Amino acid sequence: MLSSKYLACLVCSITLNLLFIINIYVGDQWKLSWSTRAALEAEKIAAIYCSGHGRAYLDGLVVADGNQPVCSCNTCFTGPDCSRFIPRCAADANSGSPLFLEPFWMQHLASSALVVPGWHQMGYTYDDLTFVSKELEKLVRRLHSTVGNAVTKNRFVIFGAGSTQVLSAAVFALSNENASSPARVVSSVPYYVIDKDQTQYYSSAKFEFEGDAYTWRNRSDASSTDMIEFVTSPNNPDGQLKEAILHGPNVKTIYDRAYYWPHFTPIPAPADEDVMVFTLSKLTGHAGTRLGWAVIKDETVFNRMMLHMKLNSMGISKDAQLRAFRLLKAVLEEGTGIFDFAYRTMKSRWERLVRTVSSSDRFSLPENNPQYCTFYNKVRQLSPAYAWLKCEREEDKDCYAVLKEANIIGRRGNLFGAEDRYVRLSLIRAEDDFDLLIERLKEFISKENGAKTFEE
Amino acid sequence: MLSSKYLACLVCSITLNLLFIINIYVGDQWKLSWSTRAALEAEKIAAIYCSGHGRAYLDGLVVADGNQPVCSCNTCFTGPDCSRFIPRCAADANSGSPLFLEPFWMQHLASSALVVPGWHQMGYTYDDLTFVSKELEKLVRRLHSTVGNAVTKNRFVIFGAGSTQVLSAAVFALSNENASSPARVVSSVPYYVIDKDQTQYYSSAKFEFEGDAYTWRNRSDASSTDMIEFVTSPNNPDGQLKEAILHGPNVKTIYDRAYYWPHFTPIPAPADEDVMVFTLSKLTGHAGTRLGWAVIKDETVFNRMMLHMKLNSMGISKDAQLRAFRLLKAVLEEGTGIFDFAYRTMKSRWERLVRTVSSSDRFSLPENNPQYCTFYNKVRQLSPAYAWLKCEREEDKDCYAVLKEANIIGRRGNLFGAEDRYVRLSLIRAEDDFDLLIERLKEFISKENGAKTFEE
Repeated sequence: MLSSKYLACLVCSITLNLLFIINIYVGDQWKLSWSTRAALEAEKIAAIYCSGHGRAYLDGLVVADGNQPVCSCNTCFTGPDCSRFIPRCAADANSGSPLFLEPFWMQHLASSALVVPGWHQMGYTYDDLTFVSKELEKLVRRLHSTVGNAVTKNRFVIFGAGSTQVLSAAVFALSNENASSPARVVSSVPYYVIDKDQTQYYSSAKFEFEGDAYTWRNRSDASSTDMIEFVTSPNNPDGQLKEAILHGPNVKTIYDRAYYWPHFTPIPAPADEDVMVFTLSKLTGHAGTRLGWAVIKDETVFNRMMLHMKLNSMGISKDAQLRAFRLLKAVLEEGTGIFDFAYRTMKSRWERLVRTVSSSDRFSLPENNPQYCTFYNKVRQLSPAYAWLKCEREEDKDCYAVLKEANIIGRRGNLFGAEDRYVRLSLIRAEDDFDLLIERLKEFISKENGAKTFEE
Repeated sequence: MLSSKYLACLVCSITLNLLFIINIYVGDQWKLSWSTRAALEAEKIAAIYCSGHGRAYLDGLVVADGNQPVCSCNTCFTGPDCSRFIPRCAADANSGSPLFLEPFWMQHLASSALVVPGWHQMGYTYDDLTFVSKELEKLVRRLHSTVGNAVTKNRFVIFGAGSTQVLSAAVFALSNENASSPARVVSSVPYYVIDKDQTQYYSSAKFEFEGDAYTWRNRSDASSTDMIEFVTSPNNPDGQLKEAILHGPNVKTIYDRAYYWPHFTPIPAPADEDVMVFTLSKLTGHAGTRLGWAVIKDETVFNRMMLHMKLNSMGISKDAQLRAFRLLKAVLEEGTGIFDFAYRTMKSRWERLVRTVSSSDRFSLPENNPQYCTFYNKVRQLSPAYAWLKCEREEDKDCYAVLKEANIIGRRGNLFGAEDRYVRLSLIRAEDDFDLLIERLKEFISKENGAKTFEE
């Protein structure tokens, strides 16, 4: 009898232990059904080893005979696991792909993962028959109020395919349909290249691009002409908190606030302009999602922009909105986490850049006047997304070519309406790109300085 | 000794059994890590009961105090679980939201679920520095070749935010930049309303909308003018396999092939035009994803359309492309499954509609001449996405108003450049909408017919 009791006890105990083990190691996962296959596939692909210089994507390239994607390598890296550096590869500081935020998301996998059932949101519109997700809108408002960078109370919010589509919608919405002459669209030099290219591309009887806002400041016809001014603030390319040049009843202003986040600039006060444009790209780093928004005071302007979204693309991708929803939820969950990470990264990159550039007098960077930041409650400097580098030598009229010689790809000053003595260097790309940029700059400068060596 | 051996055996056996049980009921799920939380949340929300007249979405409305989305109900249903029918609610046959395919995806949950890590595809471009996912492109080509509805060999493929953006890109790309006069954009009546609205909205020195293609057929200046003709085939609104009206060296044609899939039309042969436009919306039913594409013969046109995508929205949402990738993979996995489901649904809806309409002589439908379908290898009728209903009575000049009286919302004929004696009824909406449409039509007709009743 004793032995059988003992046996029963033992069996019970082992069973219980096993159940606990299941619970600890398996947790709630046994409850999953339809999402399991996709989750397993996604985790398997995400785990493919790419040496820290790349990553494998679900929709990444599949090579011949394979049925699993291969590593997508960062610029200048190659090989099946991205471990091989391509010799003499140029440092890419051209595009503004904000990969500097990728490590943040690698550190917040659980809160940022998204699971979408096949039947999710198939119709054109949401419940309320609009193209705008109300829940995403709520998150956007909450975020602005948490950060204190924009007033959204009693304002309309509209989404679009990146700030690119939103900016275009704003120009159309602010142009007078039945004007005798087209509205003149201007921006003060240096300006964001897309503002010019896009406005020229769509120019019509409604509006035309007219170049530098400064040239219109003292013109006698400026007050009798419909004007639209783009104000990118902080500015792309030079990172300064730009202000409007033109004022008056005939002037409408579109504030591109893409970079008005604490990682790029001190936030002196919440922005409160008539039309303010933001983008997920420079907030969470998800440029590829194409999700921008505008905060708008006037209902007519809002309605006209809505009409633009309808005629341009029959609304905004619900998948882009859903992704943004998931990411902004994760951002809000982490408190100031993403801003701390991003600011730390940008600050450290700027310190490295300034140290490198200041070791030579061949190049210079814009002034960086500290300001009070209401988000961090302290006086701090700018840490812009781009460096607006100037070649100081008289003969270096083509700064792009000078950098090309140093095996660095920047973006020419004249694309921003400025002299070619300037080049824009993107500082928000992947760590690999930034490291290479600094390395190449150092090599170039140390060659200049002859034997003189320096430490970064 | 025997007892201790016996005990050891028992413990082993129980342990093994438990491991088998884990394996059967838990399967591979214990391998999951970062995706578990999102998967659990998604499955929990997907399981919210909405009476079959709605569904709960991850990004669906959250009501006050709640932290979980509530049911999004189909038109005419309400209540926390969508179980209450709204009395006297109008039958909505207006928009072309293709919810008729939702049940297909409800039946294919595992193959169509998508799991996205937070760091997925953050940059603007893919590996090859383009805005177009090469793997999605491969799936699109495979699908066209499986279905046999379009030639894609030696053709370029470009994506855009729904066919809306792609069609607009095509008009810009086909207009001569330095022409002395704008290209005349036409379409034969009845035409797709967006073609007109969009072209008018963007009209400039490059192109202008000029209305009905028929009016240009015999004009003497037609051969000396740059013309662009939209040919929507099968046509929206009337479902017919439309052909181009204008021909000649100065005429460029954009074929809108959105509805050229076996569920809407017999496929006589693969389409092989210079510019053909398709959309995910009318293929898988995911209108909200905003993913369209063009198959293009000429490289210059392709490059100009690419430029358009850049200036319009800095590329195409990678989230939209990823969703399309997952869905098209599922479509291809199922062989002819989605087409069989969709054709069966459309055929049965048409049979119900024809039976209902033909019980009265107040309305008529377009002729439906059978053709050979190479996909189903048989002669079959059209089963278009829309019914192009005509009010036959002399006094019923406003057919929209007649249907309104019957408590049915259609779309006015004049929006398609036609008489208001016609109304477009959408047949691709949710089953609830279609059922109500038929019911309302029957009620209306039976009132007409007095005591005479009829069975559907």
